[in-house]
Amino acid sequence: MSRLLLAAATVIGLASALPAAAQFQKPEDAVKYRKAAYTVMSTHFGRIGAMVQGKVPYDGAAAAANAAIVAQMSVLPFAGFVEGTSGTEKGQPKPIVWTERAKFDAAAKKMQDEVAKLAVAAKANNPDTLKAAFGEAASACKACHDHFRNP
Amino acid sequence: MSRLLLAAATVIGLASALPAAAQFQKPEDAVKYRKAAYTVMSTHFGRIGAMVQGKVPYDGAAAAANAAIVAQMSVLPFAGFVEGTSGTEKGQPKPIVWTERAKFDAAAKKMQDEVAKLAVAAKANNPDTLKAAFGEAASACKACHDHFRNP
Repeated sequence: MSRLLLAAATVIGLASALPAAAQFQKPEDAVKYRKAAYTVMSTHFGRIGAMVQGKVPYDGAAAAANAAIVAQMSVLPFAGFVEGTSGTEKGQPKPIVWTERAKFDAAAKKMQDEVAKLAVAAKANNPDTLKAAFGEAASACKACHDHFRNP
Repeated sequence: MSRLLLAAATVIGLASALPAAAQFQKPEDAVKYRKAAYTVMSTHFGRIGAMVQGKVPYDGAAAAANAAIVAQMSVLPFAGFVEGTSGTEKGQPKPIVWTERAKFDAAAKKMQDEVAKLAVAAKANNPDTLKAAFGEAASACKACHDHFRNP
């Protein structure tokens, strides 16, 4: 197993040791936390996107570093989806996150799987490989957003 | 080397591959990013604090999981301290972050070292070991806040 996969497996394994209940004192703490985790994740994902789209020059080491952080962050936000934190404003989660929880969890898992693959793909140091894996990961993000998030 | 140390070393090694310059389009993006990274870090650090202070029951697996995430997050916020993002409001960094940059960087490194030790200590699954390491890490956080952050 590569160091990167081992690191990702360690993080995911450890995250699963976090107790699911009573992690946040108040619902607004959970909202702040999940938004923060998404902000960090999307910042690093966006840097790969900029490379893939030719907005910045391809840099294999930076792509791998950013992808590793995305994979690590990908396990964190979902603990913040506690009951009573849906909304109707742009960007807020719809109530179906909780009424279709199994589907939501599957969408989260799909994203985590795709960004884990992206982290591996980025290590290949090949712009085309990176682009393909980035596209799959971006599709997984979008599928969840389209269904569960207010536009 | 333990899996945990390997994971932490991988993250820190990869983060150092991120280009220092031009990571953020706008200064406010850098501010949002560093605040988000601190929010995630402090959430997990706070959970260990609650155990150490007896507010929640000791849970060795949860302590180790939270400490691993703290160690991983600890390398991220500092890229967000770009020029022109100091302020005078509560919680904002003072201008001395940039005029005393070497001292600031040393304070950041001290915190990263202490939370890396905390991640190792948490794996020992001993409340007293955890408490001692938590105290050292908390002191490193406080030292930097006291000098560089508006109260």
